[in-house]
Amino acid sequence: MATFFAEDILPDSKMHQLTEEESKHCIRVLRYELDSKLDLVDGKGNQFIGKIIDNHPKRCKIEIEDVIRHHNPKNAIQIAVAPTKNMDRIEWFLEKAVELGLTKLTFLKCENNERNSVNLERLQKIAISAMKQSKRYFLPEIENLIPFNQFVTNNPNGFIGHCYDGDKISLTEINKNKPFLIGPEGDFSRLEVDFAIKNGYSAVRMSDFRLRTETAALTAVFSLL
Amino acid sequence: MATFFAEDILPDSKMHQLTEEESKHCIRVLRYELDSKLDLVDGKGNQFIGKIIDNHPKRCKIEIEDVIRHHNPKNAIQIAVAPTKNMDRIEWFLEKAVELGLTKLTFLKCENNERNSVNLERLQKIAISAMKQSKRYFLPEIENLIPFNQFVTNNPNGFIGHCYDGDKISLTEINKNKPFLIGPEGDFSRLEVDFAIKNGYSAVRMSDFRLRTETAALTAVFSLL
Repeated sequence: MATFFAEDILPDSKMHQLTEEESKHCIRVLRYELDSKLDLVDGKGNQFIGKIIDNHPKRCKIEIEDVIRHHNPKNAIQIAVAPTKNMDRIEWFLEKAVELGLTKLTFLKCENNERNSVNLERLQKIAISAMKQSKRYFLPEIENLIPFNQFVTNNPNGFIGHCYDGDKISLTEINKNKPFLIGPEGDFSRLEVDFAIKNGYSAVRMSDFRLRTETAALTAVFSLL
Repeated sequence: MATFFAEDILPDSKMHQLTEEESKHCIRVLRYELDSKLDLVDGKGNQFIGKIIDNHPKRCKIEIEDVIRHHNPKNAIQIAVAPTKNMDRIEWFLEKAVELGLTKLTFLKCENNERNSVNLERLQKIAISAMKQSKRYFLPEIENLIPFNQFVTNNPNGFIGHCYDGDKISLTEINKNKPFLIGPEGDFSRLEVDFAIKNGYSAVRMSDFRLRTETAALTAVFSLL
């Protein structure tokens, strides 16, 4: 049974009309027929089981027959990462991270950033697709670029992966439910690392080898699971 | 200092000529000059530190000044996976897995495979590039497709990720240094799972969500680190 995204559905809705894009996918691509059963998810933990009562290829209508409220994810998995020069790398990171249980992704504006803008709409689509594919019911929040110092001030006491020497804890010593910061290709600046440490962050030894930004970010996700 | 691959170099070599491709990269792309220092790796744990004594853009010659023998990786990280329909997904998995410490990748011919051939030469290039980029000194072995039952018979007592119900251990209960099997998009067949269990394999609960093949394979790498 396929899953469709219903962003604006209310928890007690009895009927829902798919968006034009989702209608086309449902009726033209998957060739669902009248009375076919399907799942709707709102990305907020609600799963709606319904059947098609109007198989219009642009305005497909679903009658809701049952609703299941899913529990919140057991761990908050919050990653704050500098966008990579090549956005493909962040896009695949996002797909994998959503599959694994990411709850929030923030983009950081760092001194050494190779890029200072992201296409949020495109990333949102990737997140929705990964949520549906992996049968998750929660859509992670994706936050546009904010300055490094601002993020750290507002979210103290997390973890930071950087390549400078110094005291570092191992990945197995991570406390769950704390934000994890991953820097750009050229690493965080020394000033940024010091600022994070002053705000209660712990530096983490990510690997014996040199990891790309997106590999480090995925390592951070695994450590927070 | 950039790293170059010298597949055929002997451990006690005093001189090495880069391949045409590596010469071009070194002299034309990175614009290294006569007497520049660089690293060579053989993928078998030897790191050679040398300097350019002939900056020919097709036949660059390096004089070896020092050799460092690196220890074997602490854990054998062996993944056996069915190739995905879309090879991009396996290619990125390979890049990430090499960065993280993969030691051997085997492709499995399973009942539900969507694909039964892989381009080993292309995969080899990706592995070499990831090895150099991540400053590793060992190149993982990549093994072409072999039938599922043959692999399991020759490599008993490993781990298998599948989606059927039944007893499963958690990722934190994994013993290191055992092969980990990941199935195709349509999962292993019930017969394949039973055959693995009979050969001493333990089924593993990979995630609370439905993972794509390559995400499951990367999860397996993390569990073996």
